[in-house]
Amino acid sequence: MKINAVEIYKSIEVIRHQAPVVHNITNYVVMNNTANALLAIGASPVMAHAPEEVEEMVNIASSLVINIGTLSERWIYSMLKAAAQARKNGIPVILDPVGVGATSYRTQTARELIATDSPAIIRGNASEIMALYDDKTKTKGVDSAALSDDAITIAQKLSETYNCVVCVSGATDYIIEGKQIVKVNNGHPLMTRVTGLGCTASALCGAFAAVEKDYVAATVKAMAVMGIAGEIAAEKAVGPGSMQMHFLDHLYRLSEAEITSRLKIEE
Amino acid sequence: MKINAVEIYKSIEVIRHQAPVVHNITNYVVMNNTANALLAIGASPVMAHAPEEVEEMVNIASSLVINIGTLSERWIYSMLKAAAQARKNGIPVILDPVGVGATSYRTQTARELIATDSPAIIRGNASEIMALYDDKTKTKGVDSAALSDDAITIAQKLSETYNCVVCVSGATDYIIEGKQIVKVNNGHPLMTRVTGLGCTASALCGAFAAVEKDYVAATVKAMAVMGIAGEIAAEKAVGPGSMQMHFLDHLYRLSEAEITSRLKIEE
Amino acid sequence: MKINAVEIYKSIEVIRHQAPVVHNITNYVVMNNTANALLAIGASPVMAHAPEEVEEMVNIASSLVINIGTLSERWIYSMLKAAAQARKNGIPVILDPVGVGATSYRTQTARELIATDSPAIIRGNASEIMALYDDKTKTKGVDSAALSDDAITIAQKLSETYNCVVCVSGATDYIIEGKQIVKVNNGHPLMTRVTGLGCTASALCGAFAAVEKDYVAATVKAMAVMGIAGEIAAEKAVGPGSMQMHFLDHLYRLSEAEITSRLKIEE
Repeated sequence: MKINAVEIYKSIEVIRHQAPVVHNITNYVVMNNTANALLAIGASPVMAHAPEEVEEMVNIASSLVINIGTLSERWIYSMLKAAAQARKNGIPVILDPVGVGATSYRTQTARELIATDSPAIIRGNASEIMALYDDKTKTKGVDSAALSDDAITIAQKLSETYNCVVCVSGATDYIIEGKQIVKVNNGHPLMTRVTGLGCTASALCGAFAAVEKDYVAATVKAMAVMGIAGEIAAEKAVGPGSMQMHFLDHLYRLSEAEITSRLKIEE
Repeated sequence: MKINAVEIYKSIEVIRHQAPVVHNITNYVVMNNTANALLAIGASPVMAHAPEEVEEMVNIASSLVINIGTLSERWIYSMLKAAAQARKNGIPVILDPVGVGATSYRTQTARELIATDSPAIIRGNASEIMALYDDKTKTKGVDSAALSDDAITIAQKLSETYNCVVCVSGATDYIIEGKQIVKVNNGHPLMTRVTGLGCTASALCGAFAAVEKDYVAATVKAMAVMGIAGEIAAEKAVGPGSMQMHFLDHLYRLSEAEITSRLKIEE
Repeated sequence: MKINAVEIYKSIEVIRHQAPVVHNITNYVVMNNTANALLAIGASPVMAHAPEEVEEMVNIASSLVINIGTLSERWIYSMLKAAAQARKNGIPVILDPVGVGATSYRTQTARELIATDSPAIIRGNASEIMALYDDKTKTKGVDSAALSDDAITIAQKLSETYNCVVCVSGATDYIIEGKQIVKVNNGHPLMTRVTGLGCTASALCGAFAAVEKDYVAATVKAMAVMGIAGEIAAEKAVGPGSMQMHFLDHLYRLSEAEITSRLKIEE
């Protein structure tokens, strides 16, 4: 597989044209941002978490994004129910294991979600991905992201065990499926000072996976688009407040020329 | 009734002067935006959803806005309790039936709210309003808004059956009470790329209905103010991020001259 | 104690360097803002409210911020559990009694939190602080803030009774511990038109208290930083939308020179 700017832009055009419904069961902190990012890229976000309605909502969706950032018992029940319906319908589930490793509740919930409903894509930072696989690493809250070779090895094991794409995001994003590794080198450090841009990346994986059955390609495209919009935004921003604003503006306006001139993928 | 710029601006001045408390039981995605929009227009937003306190909160409020965008069992219970208290106190209830038609849970909840507590104003897009009335239409998520003559006819029936003002919002907003129809032609397409501006419109209906007993007039004023602030914002925005920022800025700064030069109402 | 610009900036540098984990159990309306403000100042925000995980999350945190803005039964249970763990671990609890006085549910909850878990810092507006102490005052929603000498007297009683720092915020912020009163005269009226800046102030108290054992000093520093970033933002803002953006930008960029030239503390 070779992913280039033309193909990425084509997927954006498909998203803009089809406006696929992306169903999000996500955390309170980022709901607004992620809905706005999905609208900016051209998708149709819906948010619904009640057990009474998640299956019906999944039925009108083209992908399901599950983010465990602010868990509670009833939401987990709905996440499992929605994921089961997504599997039944054959639509991809994207899992964002926010804060896994910080508490055993998060770790167990994420593992249960993976074991029972085989997500198409898991996206987290290095410490989350490592903690998801085993109990040997400890995360410091939700922002720990120091990347090591260990993280890559563990991401590969995770991918092989659960037959899914694993994205380890950081200064370089690693998109992994079995032995295949694609690196995306776009992005900017200021992105880590805006809450929920990791969650936004997972939501964008949902938008691309809604229109692209090759989930490695969908994830690579989503991460490249995140990174490029983030770079353009960071060049205009004077801090994290204007960063968030410019990010949404440029996600919305992203052109093929911008992607062509900035894209940094290593396969 | 003739609504003109002078009257709209007078209502804004009354809101700024009285700072009426608008009690919102709304969805997680838009709470921040709608609170900010209410502050920008000069009202005093409160958000409270616990059954233990909603009645007391309604007691200090001048209007109640109920938005079903992220439902759950306990919240529905509180919505019904708050609405009953609002009716008892004689303050207007504004209902935003977000996503009605997408799931039967939303449709049934919205119908129950209407049947038991007769809102003063219902504001939704065409597909929500149509799905609210009967089961013949299906909505695609929460953003479907293709308007048809059918939607107007159904809005009229809804208004007559439940004795309330119905606002069908879209490129043109239709404010309907029985046979009376007022059209507001303000607004900008970029508004649909910012999450929660529909919910914000409902919140502003709450602010105007708090100071204006003619609920048709209150709704027309709210929708005109939304549309005009949206137009000014869109002229300055480069995308949905800056759109949201400019919208709040210009809602806050809205002058009589701006309203006079831009207002497009058809009665 | 003399607090000057050099010391304030030193604390900011410590926060930026240590990136202390600040655990927030806060309201839905402001979660995004407060997480962003904590990131902007250099701290590591985490949000978690499930009873199953709050104790573990407190274990990795350097302070705990409890904000009762959108209460419900299960959240109160978690607040008490988290606060007990914080006390056990010897980390400071910051309480924001949002809307106390508006409903008895809020008043009772805040009093229970204070009585059982002795917060290090309580920060509220005048009406909230007064209503917290006794039932003689009534608040109009969450934004009432008319300050009186009574509020100062009551804040002193509250401080003495519960052995904590009380911050009465408003045009002038009063930081009180027993007989000691420090006034911070920074800030700008436009800050009251942005939702959640009071909650943000409490979150920043959490960031400073995480790195500073003198809780009077930590609170004074947090309120000064809030006010100064607010002043700079207000000079650039044209309304509450751009205010929020500039606030985060300048919280992130705050320099020693800016603090030196603007700081207005009276001891």
